[in-house]
Amino acid sequence: MTFGLKGVREMSNIINYSSWENKTPFGAIKINQDIRISVEADESYNLKNIKWIILKDDNKVGEVDLVRESKKYYQGEFNKFNETGLYFYYFEVEVDINGNNRKLFYGKNYNDGNVCEYSYENLNKYQITVHEDFKIPLWYKEGIMYNIFVDRFNNGNRNKKPSNPKENSFIYANWSDTPMYIRDKNDDIIRWDFYGGNLKGIIEKLPYLSKMGVSIIYLNPIFESPSNHKYNTGDYKKIDPMFGDEEILKELIEKANTKGINIILDGVFSHTGADSKYFNKFGNYDEVGAYQSKDSKYSSWYTFNEFPDDYKCWWGVKDLPNVNELNKSYMNYIIYEEDSVINKWTSMGIKGWRLDVADELPTEFIKEFRKELKKNDSESILIGEVWEDASNKISYNERRSYLVGNQLDSVMGYPFRDNIVSFLKGNITSKELNNKFMTIKENYPKESFKANLNLISSHDVPRIKTELNYDEAMVKLAVATQMTFEGVPYIYYGDEAGLCGGTDPDNRKTYPWKNEDENMIEFYKQSINTRKQYNVLINGDTEFIDTNDDDVFGYIRFNDKYEKMLILVNRSLENKNISIDIKENTLEIVDIKYSSNKYLEFISKECEEFNLQISPKSFNIFNVTNHIEV
Amino acid sequence: MTFGLKGVREMSNIINYSSWENKTPFGAIKINQDIRISVEADESYNLKNIKWIILKDDNKVGEVDLVRESKKYYQGEFNKFNETGLYFYYFEVEVDINGNNRKLFYGKNYNDGNVCEYSYENLNKYQITVHEDFKIPLWYKEGIMYNIFVDRFNNGNRNKKPSNPKENSFIYANWSDTPMYIRDKNDDIIRWDFYGGNLKGIIEKLPYLSKMGVSIIYLNPIFESPSNHKYNTGDYKKIDPMFGDEEILKELIEKANTKGINIILDGVFSHTGADSKYFNKFGNYDEVGAYQSKDSKYSSWYTFNEFPDDYKCWWGVKDLPNVNELNKSYMNYIIYEEDSVINKWTSMGIKGWRLDVADELPTEFIKEFRKELKKNDSESILIGEVWEDASNKISYNERRSYLVGNQLDSVMGYPFRDNIVSFLKGNITSKELNNKFMTIKENYPKESFKANLNLISSHDVPRIKTELNYDEAMVKLAVATQMTFEGVPYIYYGDEAGLCGGTDPDNRKTYPWKNEDENMIEFYKQSINTRKQYNVLINGDTEFIDTNDDDVFGYIRFNDKYEKMLILVNRSLENKNISIDIKENTLEIVDIKYSSNKYLEFISKECEEFNLQISPKSFNIFNVTNHIEV
Repeated sequence: MTFGLKGVREMSNIINYSSWENKTPFGAIKINQDIRISVEADESYNLKNIKWIILKDDNKVGEVDLVRESKKYYQGEFNKFNETGLYFYYFEVEVDINGNNRKLFYGKNYNDGNVCEYSYENLNKYQITVHEDFKIPLWYKEGIMYNIFVDRFNNGNRNKKPSNPKENSFIYANWSDTPMYIRDKNDDIIRWDFYGGNLKGIIEKLPYLSKMGVSIIYLNPIFESPSNHKYNTGDYKKIDPMFGDEEILKELIEKANTKGINIILDGVFSHTGADSKYFNKFGNYDEVGAYQSKDSKYSSWYTFNEFPDDYKCWWGVKDLPNVNELNKSYMNYIIYEEDSVINKWTSMGIKGWRLDVADELPTEFIKEFRKELKKNDSESILIGEVWEDASNKISYNERRSYLVGNQLDSVMGYPFRDNIVSFLKGNITSKELNNKFMTIKENYPKESFKANLNLISSHDVPRIKTELNYDEAMVKLAVATQMTFEGVPYIYYGDEAGLCGGTDPDNRKTYPWKNEDENMIEFYKQSINTRKQYNVLINGDTEFIDTNDDDVFGYIRFNDKYEKMLILVNRSLENKNISIDIKENTLEIVDIKYSSNKYLEFISKECEEFNLQISPKSFNIFNVTNHIEV
Repeated sequence: MTFGLKGVREMSNIINYSSWENKTPFGAIKINQDIRISVEADESYNLKNIKWIILKDDNKVGEVDLVRESKKYYQGEFNKFNETGLYFYYFEVEVDINGNNRKLFYGKNYNDGNVCEYSYENLNKYQITVHEDFKIPLWYKEGIMYNIFVDRFNNGNRNKKPSNPKENSFIYANWSDTPMYIRDKNDDIIRWDFYGGNLKGIIEKLPYLSKMGVSIIYLNPIFESPSNHKYNTGDYKKIDPMFGDEEILKELIEKANTKGINIILDGVFSHTGADSKYFNKFGNYDEVGAYQSKDSKYSSWYTFNEFPDDYKCWWGVKDLPNVNELNKSYMNYIIYEEDSVINKWTSMGIKGWRLDVADELPTEFIKEFRKELKKNDSESILIGEVWEDASNKISYNERRSYLVGNQLDSVMGYPFRDNIVSFLKGNITSKELNNKFMTIKENYPKESFKANLNLISSHDVPRIKTELNYDEAMVKLAVATQMTFEGVPYIYYGDEAGLCGGTDPDNRKTYPWKNEDENMIEFYKQSINTRKQYNVLINGDTEFIDTNDDDVFGYIRFNDKYEKMLILVNRSLENKNISIDIKENTLEIVDIKYSSNKYLEFISKECEEFNLQISPKSFNIFNVTNHIEV
């Protein structure tokens, strides 16, 4: 069985190999799983030997002499993947050139799974992610996530006045006002701005979210903090009074649960606020803070170059003193104690956490956090804020391996957004898009890829509508792709209502109650509904298709129950004729959706080529389930 | 009869003269009134002639050879003050020095009323203000003014939410928050901030103001405008919707009137807002504005160097396009039309105007404004924002004469504040303070001096409490002086409640309802009550006293009913023994107030010297009415 992209490989070099096609199994493997590979060799060369060199991180752990199985094919097997982590491999080819023995080195092409010759020094090795046998909770993998920036979503107070406004802060005069930062000449924020959204407001809108199909609500931070975003935590154990209190959070959790919705919190553990119970720079808290005295019980959490004003802080932001995450007192407080931060909120019914700036948290901290979390509730989930390929990200000179089963369950899928946006904007071809997705798919454990948060907007990037130049058809292509893709769809509040906005704070506008784009809401509902109607869109694997057209992105979602859905996304302004090679199966079009203009022309049935004409800027989804049981 | 300060004169030069003592009548005169002067000459010189040269503005209109009336005294009379305006005079003294005839020129000493020899070129001439025979309405002269910056005084809505908040503006989260401007890096204000005070809030507090003794409320601008201060008028004929509407203004006027309180508005006629019905730079108004088209009916109001973006504006502030005040269409709109701005609001019961930046309004505009105003309501009042001696201020190279009876009735008394503050802070002696007050008293028509707004704080200067370094005893000295001084006391909202604040916007904090300094309110009430109890404090003339102590400022308020009140202000931290020469009258202490420590020691009664011991930082007021009828 072959996986992945077809037809992208060309004969080149002396050997030919694609990790996407010639390696079994495809992609990441479980610990102690074996892999087999098959390398094609060019007969015209006088090839002496092909060595398959395997490393764990930077250490060589295996060297396999490939065995010539046929005239052209050399094969090998390796079975010592006995630790989780990142393995790498390359090929050393000995060849006789004009009577001279030469060693050639082959690693991974930067763009796809094919081999490429490199000098030894510059080798780009293939990656194999070796992970524990872990399972992502079903409720999460099969969920639809809705992310709420609380201050901006909805005010649930009857009089619409913000609850417990903070001293010396501003309230926007109107819910519809444009957000802005209030800064001084040094660009420092000198006063915080609020709209007054709160937890009650979310409770009020649970029916709306439920009807749309949302099953997970991820809240940006809700703990006490002077800011509107609350990434500068003031007290990990207290709901910000503007947002509500524990009673209201409990009510939210319970009412959400009755609608099949779980709540996930945002945890900021790399730093606290300077204005916090722990650092207490401004004396706003009763307890003695680390800034106030070296005798503070929180002193060991922080690092002072010179007490009290020269302290380590997040990216130089004095308002965000860094914590020593591995400090025992800190870990006790956050993780281990009976009333630790994890335990307190888990026992209240919180189903998981999104770890802010996971890159800046020590691996050990993440592992311990995970352990305690899962001990409390094995069905809970741990998500990380990682912007790049989370399987191998290098942060602070350390190669991280978040996705080997003992750290993160899921990550913020910024690569999904980057890829889709690049394609829709015409910056990359459909083939390049395929390659980008395949790389992620190859590197991520299957479970992680299925748990990947496929986002198209967030509070840290421009909203999709703005990113796509307010082209609603394009937005719909992105949304429909997201809703038919492998991974968990992530809706940033308001996107579904047609909200637009550039960089922060413009991407944090209020949800436009009573001014919603109803058409867009309907589109979201339909898309989500389709996802739920066809289980293969949730659970199925993915095969990316070479459509032979730069403008048409195609993929098939399939499962072992022979369910298949074909998706074709035409970004162009032209009608496109696409031929799909469907040798293996006989397909039938069952359903056609989202074609923005007219219905697709179904040209041929029960044949080996499937010729389709698709409309300009259209999203086309076909149920191409086999004729086996029907 | 002598006026003013005693004992400040010393023999100097060849002649001796003080306009404060040797000119009858003292100070400004009515048109066609005569004046007589008396000059003392030093017999030891061989004096040939003393010429008294009189000018109207820069033109000589009289030359009087003084007549030797006695060995030492030369006298003269001039009776051709037949135009209103500013007259000036000096002396030309011919003297024989060692057989040579020499001409010496004598003008006014810069510090007091005494003569001083100058070269002809540098002569500092004496001023005589010649004015029409005008009367300031009694309600005003005898009033207590309370100035309200509406957004910051009180919100009269039941739910305390601001009415009709403006698009893209900020509301302070709490009434007690510290005000600030929201600016960009160029220091331009980019969003307006509001607390939500409104006219209803003033109505609600009328009982409070009335109980304190307030009889005039002067409102900072209330016409529609995007800002909180509203000096950038958007529509001269519309109440800003955040503040209220015409019905509410009517209600305010009526309810205020039933409590004997009149309402005065702030008129900003040197410029409009760029965001106005007239200029309409941002298209927020329906009518075509001058910025939008050269065909706008308001085009002639403005001056464009290059249409539309290069236009004349107030001090270069692009948000404040200057108007051509003398433009016929503008004058019609503001002054003459049946529904002109003046007429509209006067007919609603407004009792007068405070003209913003009066210096920048053409004399002709002020005169016409006054005429129309008085035609409508002869009892109405016209106040000007003039920061210096308003009798002779030179603005834009023109010497203005606001106080000759056909322009302003009253001006903002910033010199009063400067003088009192300088004295209390120890920057000037009591004698220097006397001199400063005497200069103003001499230059102002009697009616104008009585109508002068004696302010100690305003929306444009730091509040008195901050100015005096939060020294409450000092603040009380300032307040008590203000309340016993000639002129109309002007209370800037909140001063009475202990509000402090530096420069704008700190001086525009909200009135601290429920956090008032009750002791200070009581002090204001008592001071005002004393003023009302002793009519001479309102209507009496003033004689400044040489206390022979730099730290003790003294003055007597007296009238032709032989009522007399003696005031002594001791700024120092020491007890002071003050001897007052009371040759003319036998005095009796009837009342002692505000002495911060103990009662004064009354040493002698029915004697020629009045010896008093006064406490540190004390304000002492004695009813020293003659023993004539008692």
